[in-house]
Amino acid sequence: MTLDHTHDAMLRSWVKEANGHPDFPIQNLPLGVFSPEGGAQRAGVAIGDHILDLTGLLGTDLLQGEAARAAEAAGGGALNALLALGAGPRRALRARLSELLREGAPERDRVAALLHEAAACTLHLPARIGDYTDFYVGIHHAENIGKQFRPDQPLLPNYKHVPIGYHGRASSIRPSGIPVRRPRGQSKAPDAGMPSFGPSSRLDLELELGVWIGPGNDLGTSIPIGEAQDHVAGYCLLNDWSARDIQAWEYQPLGPFLSKNFASTISPWIVTPEALSPFRIAQPPRSEGDPRPLSYLLDEADQSRGAFDLRLDVLLSTPGLREAGLPPHRISASNARHMYWTVAQMVTHHTSGGCNLQPGDLLGTGTISGPDRDACGSLVEATLGGREPLRLASGEERRFLEDGDEIILQARGVREGFAQIGFGECRAVILGAVA
Amino acid sequence: MTLDHTHDAMLRSWVKEANGHPDFPIQNLPLGVFSPEGGAQRAGVAIGDHILDLTGLLGTDLLQGEAARAAEAAGGGALNALLALGAGPRRALRARLSELLREGAPERDRVAALLHEAAACTLHLPARIGDYTDFYVGIHHAENIGKQFRPDQPLLPNYKHVPIGYHGRASSIRPSGIPVRRPRGQSKAPDAGMPSFGPSSRLDLELELGVWIGPGNDLGTSIPIGEAQDHVAGYCLLNDWSARDIQAWEYQPLGPFLSKNFASTISPWIVTPEALSPFRIAQPPRSEGDPRPLSYLLDEADQSRGAFDLRLDVLLSTPGLREAGLPPHRISASNARHMYWTVAQMVTHHTSGGCNLQPGDLLGTGTISGPDRDACGSLVEATLGGREPLRLASGEERRFLEDGDEIILQARGVREGFAQIGFGECRAVILGAVA
Repeated sequence: MTLDHTHDAMLRSWVKEANGHPDFPIQNLPLGVFSPEGGAQRAGVAIGDHILDLTGLLGTDLLQGEAARAAEAAGGGALNALLALGAGPRRALRARLSELLREGAPERDRVAALLHEAAACTLHLPARIGDYTDFYVGIHHAENIGKQFRPDQPLLPNYKHVPIGYHGRASSIRPSGIPVRRPRGQSKAPDAGMPSFGPSSRLDLELELGVWIGPGNDLGTSIPIGEAQDHVAGYCLLNDWSARDIQAWEYQPLGPFLSKNFASTISPWIVTPEALSPFRIAQPPRSEGDPRPLSYLLDEADQSRGAFDLRLDVLLSTPGLREAGLPPHRISASNARHMYWTVAQMVTHHTSGGCNLQPGDLLGTGTISGPDRDACGSLVEATLGGREPLRLASGEERRFLEDGDEIILQARGVREGFAQIGFGECRAVILGAVA
Repeated sequence: MTLDHTHDAMLRSWVKEANGHPDFPIQNLPLGVFSPEGGAQRAGVAIGDHILDLTGLLGTDLLQGEAARAAEAAGGGALNALLALGAGPRRALRARLSELLREGAPERDRVAALLHEAAACTLHLPARIGDYTDFYVGIHHAENIGKQFRPDQPLLPNYKHVPIGYHGRASSIRPSGIPVRRPRGQSKAPDAGMPSFGPSSRLDLELELGVWIGPGNDLGTSIPIGEAQDHVAGYCLLNDWSARDIQAWEYQPLGPFLSKNFASTISPWIVTPEALSPFRIAQPPRSEGDPRPLSYLLDEADQSRGAFDLRLDVLLSTPGLREAGLPPHRISASNARHMYWTVAQMVTHHTSGGCNLQPGDLLGTGTISGPDRDACGSLVEATLGGREPLRLASGEERRFLEDGDEIILQARGVREGFAQIGFGECRAVILGAVA
């Protein structure tokens, strides 16, 4: 889409703290599902430190036409029907919300009555996730992991031809703030004769973006690359928690299973393609000698504007840091530009054999690491498989996650001439394994 | 459970053709969702060549107590809420249906008014499938496939310790009778320099059982092996269609993806654990030197009655066979006893790290091949990777499936002194790829 007045950096909201807010200025307006203290689940829009009750707004005469249609579809405690409507109603809703929330809006008082303090609300998964698929498009991650297994050939021969993906577990995806129980499982040390069962001792995080599917496709049909973006309703952060010891023992020949399905954490706001429009960039140039993608994955518009410039950070808070009153330790400063395949290529590849996507399906990008050691999206990369621990200001060391540790993922769009927007929190603390 | 009067081989129904019916005698009574010609979706029970309208039965006073509670939960066009109730209500419903349908039942006329001819009805998926997981417990299949890749070490070191499984695609599961579109996809011949995109030329089937999950478990908890059967609501047949050329190119390092997610076909009836009770057998003895399962997977009751003796057949009907008026070709006669891990072990392993199962989740066993060439549950096994084609009575040959071919899976319990029961049809015809 083209940039319009809703992206204007000069635009200010009468919701005071939204102006200059690191995540939720009036230029963002992400969609979610929340419950106010003691209230039922309803649709909402983040603005500064507040949430606008979209379901309540429907009860007024402030929404008309396509914008009202979008808000109506956002009922029932899940946004699937809104996602299914596609870009038209979503953009109409954005345009109208931008009008209602900007400085000088005559409707201010009526809208202000529908604001809730975000800190007093509970945020839920924004949609019922039918199927969840995780990709592997972070090329530096694939190389870093590959090096640990195959120093001579870090990338497998298919990597630069196929947007590698696999199916994940939808039932165990939780919104930010829900603690994660350390999994137990089978593992086998390289020098052990037999496997054993117990709490994972190599618990890790993975820094990913999540992609919310909007309109789906019928089984047996595929989505051409030129239309793929029309099927994307928005984005979130995704922490694909991983138990490396369980993973190493179980993953052959069919891929990761219990090492990944005990929990995944997402940021609860759906950041729309409209909000992210200023942070679109050209697909980074491929290395010399890299193959040209097969034609079903190749589209000029996607190449020129299909990637993202988004700062991605991983923060670690430990019991020791908290006790010492120290801030979280930044494990990683990465960027979404380190995706070898675009989201459009992920969507088109997923459906290229006829697989049907449905509104509310979630795609993960896979871990997005940068090229340098301080841009790793997982601990197994940052500590070289646990060989070189991180040293924290508290004097603690970390090879993998310990009970009480908390991981916070952040995503921010920062561009000269535009308001900064962010994805909001994606955090969870690790609880000890069941005894 | 113990065998009771509902299993009595002497028990006869006033639905005449049910007596001696290969699939649906009064001893079976599987649960499903159907629509009569022009009618809405409703719950039903198969009896002979008829379907009893369970939703209609609720409108009478013929169901009371737990049986009525079960039928009430079966509303809404999907059986998830009934599955969630567990064994008590399900068994009460079975006992009452057995009374109502047996010869001499005084309620006969009132019940007969609720019968529909199955041939005039449409059968649907019996439940909304939240997540679908496929296992790999057919040891002969794992060995046959392994031999084609690693003649020296067909089974990977984890196979006899870990019930290997991976996540599959729920959205593309369809009931018997829905045609399957040949997928297109990326593949690379061993001698080709580059991959290409086009219709799969190595389209295959996989003979599996499906397991319907009943009551679930909370995230972060696990299901002990001694309780695993309480979480199983029933069984079906499952054809895990597979595109071998796409699979070979895409599957490393994260497992099969597009090669499997274009379609899976299941038989639409949920055959209950009660109906299958007579066909329970002891877990087949492991080979000498096989490791003892870790204690979380070991349970005496499961070992002594956790496996199944069920005949499993794969039939192939081709255009040539049909034109010549010839019956389908039997590719395989296998048996469910060739599962290295029991269903209880699958369920317990799945939840051992805290992953939550939900009512209506579906587990596949993986391909169940027998030890011999005529018991292979897939063509890639039966034809040794396409090297030795099947020769059909029509003069046709088959290495893999061609357009117009139809695959029919069957499962039957046959035991001296008991009525034979079957799973009903699991069939689908292959349509040509999208142009």
